[in-house]
Amino acid sequence: MGHVEALTKYVTHFVDQLAFSGVRQVVISPGSRSTPLALTFAEHSEVKHWVHLDERSAAFFALGIAKQTNEPVALVCTSGTAAANYYPAVVEAYYSRVPLVVLTADRPHELRETGAPQAVNQLQMYGDYAKFHVDLALPEENNFMYARRQAARAAAEAVTGQPGPVHVNLPFREPLIPDFSLEGAWRGDTLPVPVPSAGKKQLDSHALHHLLEQLGRSDKGLIVVGPQTHEELAEAVTEFAARLGVPVFADPLSQLRAGDHDKRHVIENYGSLLKSSWVKENMKPDYILRFGAMPVSKTYLKWVQHHEDTVDHYVVDDEPGYREPAGLAVQYIWAEAVELCRQLAAELPEGNVQTTWLEEWQQMNTMAKTEMLKDPGEALNEGHAVAYLAEALPDQSTFFIGNSMPIRDVDSFFMSTPKRVTMMANRGANGIDGVISTALGTAAAGRKTTLLLGDISFFHDMNGLWMAKSQGLPLTIVVINNDGGGIFSYLPQSRDPKHFEELFGTPLGLDLKPAVEMYGGRHLRVQTWEEYRQALAESASSQQLMVIEAMVSRDDHVDFHNTRWNDVHDAVVRWRDDNGQ
Amino acid sequence: MGHVEALTKYVTHFVDQLAFSGVRQVVISPGSRSTPLALTFAEHSEVKHWVHLDERSAAFFALGIAKQTNEPVALVCTSGTAAANYYPAVVEAYYSRVPLVVLTADRPHELRETGAPQAVNQLQMYGDYAKFHVDLALPEENNFMYARRQAARAAAEAVTGQPGPVHVNLPFREPLIPDFSLEGAWRGDTLPVPVPSAGKKQLDSHALHHLLEQLGRSDKGLIVVGPQTHEELAEAVTEFAARLGVPVFADPLSQLRAGDHDKRHVIENYGSLLKSSWVKENMKPDYILRFGAMPVSKTYLKWVQHHEDTVDHYVVDDEPGYREPAGLAVQYIWAEAVELCRQLAAELPEGNVQTTWLEEWQQMNTMAKTEMLKDPGEALNEGHAVAYLAEALPDQSTFFIGNSMPIRDVDSFFMSTPKRVTMMANRGANGIDGVISTALGTAAAGRKTTLLLGDISFFHDMNGLWMAKSQGLPLTIVVINNDGGGIFSYLPQSRDPKHFEELFGTPLGLDLKPAVEMYGGRHLRVQTWEEYRQALAESASSQQLMVIEAMVSRDDHVDFHNTRWNDVHDAVVRWRDDNGQ
Repeated sequence: MGHVEALTKYVTHFVDQLAFSGVRQVVISPGSRSTPLALTFAEHSEVKHWVHLDERSAAFFALGIAKQTNEPVALVCTSGTAAANYYPAVVEAYYSRVPLVVLTADRPHELRETGAPQAVNQLQMYGDYAKFHVDLALPEENNFMYARRQAARAAAEAVTGQPGPVHVNLPFREPLIPDFSLEGAWRGDTLPVPVPSAGKKQLDSHALHHLLEQLGRSDKGLIVVGPQTHEELAEAVTEFAARLGVPVFADPLSQLRAGDHDKRHVIENYGSLLKSSWVKENMKPDYILRFGAMPVSKTYLKWVQHHEDTVDHYVVDDEPGYREPAGLAVQYIWAEAVELCRQLAAELPEGNVQTTWLEEWQQMNTMAKTEMLKDPGEALNEGHAVAYLAEALPDQSTFFIGNSMPIRDVDSFFMSTPKRVTMMANRGANGIDGVISTALGTAAAGRKTTLLLGDISFFHDMNGLWMAKSQGLPLTIVVINNDGGGIFSYLPQSRDPKHFEELFGTPLGLDLKPAVEMYGGRHLRVQTWEEYRQALAESASSQQLMVIEAMVSRDDHVDFHNTRWNDVHDAVVRWRDDNGQ
Repeated sequence: MGHVEALTKYVTHFVDQLAFSGVRQVVISPGSRSTPLALTFAEHSEVKHWVHLDERSAAFFALGIAKQTNEPVALVCTSGTAAANYYPAVVEAYYSRVPLVVLTADRPHELRETGAPQAVNQLQMYGDYAKFHVDLALPEENNFMYARRQAARAAAEAVTGQPGPVHVNLPFREPLIPDFSLEGAWRGDTLPVPVPSAGKKQLDSHALHHLLEQLGRSDKGLIVVGPQTHEELAEAVTEFAARLGVPVFADPLSQLRAGDHDKRHVIENYGSLLKSSWVKENMKPDYILRFGAMPVSKTYLKWVQHHEDTVDHYVVDDEPGYREPAGLAVQYIWAEAVELCRQLAAELPEGNVQTTWLEEWQQMNTMAKTEMLKDPGEALNEGHAVAYLAEALPDQSTFFIGNSMPIRDVDSFFMSTPKRVTMMANRGANGIDGVISTALGTAAAGRKTTLLLGDISFFHDMNGLWMAKSQGLPLTIVVINNDGGGIFSYLPQSRDPKHFEELFGTPLGLDLKPAVEMYGGRHLRVQTWEEYRQALAESASSQQLMVIEAMVSRDDHVDFHNTRWNDVHDAVVRWRDDNGQ
């Protein structure tokens, strides 16, 4: 068997197996060494391929597809720094548990460590961030089953246990063009490697009853749902909470704030309420049962640390995980969350349990909502911009949220809604990078998608917009333009003006309109609430890239939020006084 | 001593020591965790600080400064994916031997591996690409000498042996603001760590004579100078070549094509000549003595492989290195190149030695130059665009060259000139990424700088242009816009149209004008030679960002080059026939 035949068959078996193992989409960046992979994917009937010119954005785009579909997505790039550009998205995928199958083409062994052009050491180049790494053998006759086994393992490792990125390095010798005209039944000669049947972790009856007994010792329980993506958890956890009679703190990324499940137990304003010194001291639970990652709210984190010694903490994770940044002595419960909720609920009597503890949280939540959403005044501000955006989001859509201020504003201003809106963000490493590309990746599934982010984050991934143009992907982007890094205004350095603007405020100083138009998008700059709401209304039916740039002041932001939170505190105190507490 | 005092003194000692050890510039990206470093650098009177919003571009910008100054340049970023964005430039710096001191701020130990926000495992995150890595202790009283020792080592490791990137990870606890109002003589209490006195490798007298004896066995010797940055090598190596009587093949990045040294022995057209089958077979040297990295020319590489068994190869490197991608049994000579040339020359009689072998190369070089530079015809093409650009470059300027096609076009069309032009490119990993930022980094030194690159490469690092705007850095950029990846037209996949445009041609489809204007630049699109030369003339006195977009056809490119190379071959054959060979 000649070189081209071995190359063709080896790579075809490898790609066939990836498809068989559940890889349905691939994002390819142009290059020469990666030619065998690029062409084989492009020829493959069962894998959709996308082409992206900037590998950094490409990897985040793949991340977005994988987040939206919960399926492993492949990446293909050539040798050299191309692969290093994937690093930020690989790190994010590792911590946010998103399955990526990174395929880096490499020079053959004889060109490694010889000073050959574009040959860098790609072995384990993502370090511990790749859950699995293998440097494949060169394409060879009689080694096709090996190629299939490694492809099957890579795809399986990406989705098994805690999902995450895997890395396969593939060396190729020239010539690099496969011959797809090869005749014969060879493609079926080597059987596909079966996909593992993977069970899910479930507590046994003993452990289940022990947990219920622990929770049953107090009426003042609390369920917290942090960032998580189980579609069915909202239904299961709220049903369990109802039978248990406890409030549910719902992070913006919990998938509990939006949807048609029962939301009577959902407390979405806990972050604003816990800023009240009265609530912080007096509304202490006896236990907290948390699903998902630690919530976004830093106020919540400080609150649990404040009550560290007198609250029992349980943290549920589908697979072994250690997500407890507050430094508490938590008891981990490693069991699939949805099934766990159903099993726990089944052990409790049907019907709602109502307690004073629960009622107080429900009343305070309503009060907080009223205060947070009251008349926002004349000037645009970042907080109320979220409230209006929440109103305007279409049913059955995706809402992608940028890091730094936007996710915090959404935490404070996005109230419960019956609309089915999937809320997403890059909360593995919380970077402001790659956000546009990740949102475009989620939009690639075809659902209406709206992205909220800040101007620095928009700038960081402007290259990502190329995908909107080249693929005609529709996306509405709301850019909160405060000309710089808004979050730093909350930090102590804001009080020392000497280096503040240069090092932290970092005004971007760019007119975003030409950038948006260059990528075929429509750009609307809005200065008033009326313009803003009109633009949002228009975006609902937009089928293209549309960027709404809301001009706000960084200084107003801090004041507006603090005023609102003070109002929440005052309302709670008034209510307490009225009720004679 | 309280937290703030210990933090202030620890970080100040660390930064003071970096400055003492030769770090004179730092590129800072905004972030919270990095506040102690950012503020201390900003306050430091001996370190110039730059601020860049995109860490990927920031790292390439630092790389550019370091390339231009031959001094270690520091980078500062916050925790999380920010640090991962440095990776492409770190890889490039490793292979191109450029000293970078990467300083990543980190969360303190108690927030690592706990699911804390923006806390990723930053230990050894650049793998083997960091020559030296240390995870510093938290700031502490009585540990200031330790901070100084690590700073001194980091700076020294970056420049010693083969220079390259080093990585210091610095964990900080809140609060993060140093107090620069601390009184007293503490800053001088801890003595600076002395900078090592590092010798250079020199052959002893025995080895030197042995080498001369080896070279002296044949008149048909050849010196090759690949990419290298020693300013004084041009003078030293041409003087040695003259006494030895051998031609010098000069790569575009050898610093031998431009400058006021003696260029009689410089053969810059070897790449075009070696495409001639006659030259390839008949102009075989007996030995090759190479300085610098492997030349850019792939034709040269194939030629030495073709004569593998009958040519003795010597490769000079200042420090132990293994740059021999042709797979030959070379003899490495590890000695500082400039001093080696001077020592070798001193052993030979003064004056020029002229041989037939040398004369033939000189004559062929002149012929090739005539053929390559003859009337370029009506349509703009990438090759002659370089020739006109070479004419227009000002004396005492920097010429930065993009990878993929531009560096190859420069190899073919940039002829020797007495102008003192420093020629640079990112030839460590040969990426098309980060090129604008690297060029801006070299321009930051204040010399007139001109960048030549392709449209995909321009797109990849458009964010880098932000530095031109925010810092008012002047740079002339010539973008060869062939709407996609021109180099792929040379590869076999260009003959199969099915996936070619999508996967390899990858038309960018962007109007660059608004992008350039957004960054405050002047944009000129040129379609004719007259417009092009006029634009180049204007750029010579430009004090701002100026982008000349030359519209060329990808298809013409291959034809134009092949025609020229055929003409060179024909000219050589005619000359041989005329001389009765």
